[in-house]
Amino acid sequence: MTDLALTEVVWRQPSWIAAEVDLDAPYGGDEAKMGVAIDLARRNVAHGGGPFGAAVFDAATGRIVALGANWVVSQKSSLLHAEIAAIAFAELRVGSHSLSGGNYELFASSEPCAQCLGATAWSGVRRLVCGAPAQDAEAIGFDEGPRRTDWAAQLEARGIAVTLGLLAAEARQVLRTYAARGGPIYNAFTPIG
Amino acid sequence: MTDLALTEVVWRQPSWIAAEVDLDAPYGGDEAKMGVAIDLARRNVAHGGGPFGAAVFDAATGRIVALGANWVVSQKSSLLHAEIAAIAFAELRVGSHSLSGGNYELFASSEPCAQCLGATAWSGVRRLVCGAPAQDAEAIGFDEGPRRTDWAAQLEARGIAVTLGLLAAEARQVLRTYAARGGPIYNAFTPIG
Repeated sequence: MTDLALTEVVWRQPSWIAAEVDLDAPYGGDEAKMGVAIDLARRNVAHGGGPFGAAVFDAATGRIVALGANWVVSQKSSLLHAEIAAIAFAELRVGSHSLSGGNYELFASSEPCAQCLGATAWSGVRRLVCGAPAQDAEAIGFDEGPRRTDWAAQLEARGIAVTLGLLAAEARQVLRTYAARGGPIYNAFTPIG
Repeated sequence: MTDLALTEVVWRQPSWIAAEVDLDAPYGGDEAKMGVAIDLARRNVAHGGGPFGAAVFDAATGRIVALGANWVVSQKSSLLHAEIAAIAFAELRVGSHSLSGGNYELFASSEPCAQCLGATAWSGVRRLVCGAPAQDAEAIGFDEGPRRTDWAAQLEARGIAVTLGLLAAEARQVLRTYAARGGPIYNAFTPIG
């Protein structure tokens, strides 16, 4: 069956990231780091992507380890949420299936959906910091999926510190702008494009 | 920062799959399809991978659309659980971010962890069939993560039929064999290799 010769899944970091994001700067403090994730979400919308951004930082240096945004539609993968992309590229850079060899923090412009919550638990990051609450993503039509109500405590119990609602108003504005522009609100059974 | 030139994440289907699995046959009935997923888990262990296998079938034809196994350690990605791999390769083959354009079924040798449960919800598959229950994976040291106790009902509510415990004894045996051989039980904060 020749189609099964499709034996490589490739995810690409779009070239605009290197052109538009300062990848070399150290980012000091949580708000600056969250600013990177939210800015990425905003720029991703401008480039036709989904309104979610995420960044993995090395807590020791404040430098970006990897970035991700929602590339579900553009790269044709339901898996490619912002946190998944950031984790995938961070593990590529670190060269390991776990980020637990360092002190890495995941900043996400919105709370994780069910999938990204689980992925965060297995990634080896030491900390998750979220911007907009789930209700903001749901308010424009995205489904967060089957999450436990105590999901943050569940991550904490697995050694991952969780901070919620950082720069939430700014993060929410990206979601609202996306919805106002008529950006696609895809779900599993409402495929687009 | 030159390391950020690592701009492609690549997941590869190991070459032994095409050599060892009959990719062209139609598989009739749930037990035959689950047999493919469990056989894949068994063979993956023999090739040094994790004890989990998954397969996406076209329900209309009984043919394999894509296969996946746990390649977390070998491909250095915490994301690369069997279900994630199967979904990624199925979407590659279908050429869409959603499998909802057809009638696709995901067979997995074990119940999904928190991450794969969420990924299943977004994949567009119409049905999830699982082999070994979560307790069997937990019994050998794997963590299923923060799952809702009503996770199956949550998938059903999103249009995904769920069947549990198919060929559970056979699937469990793969897990036990893996543990007995001393296969690595990695978790986020106990990296190996």
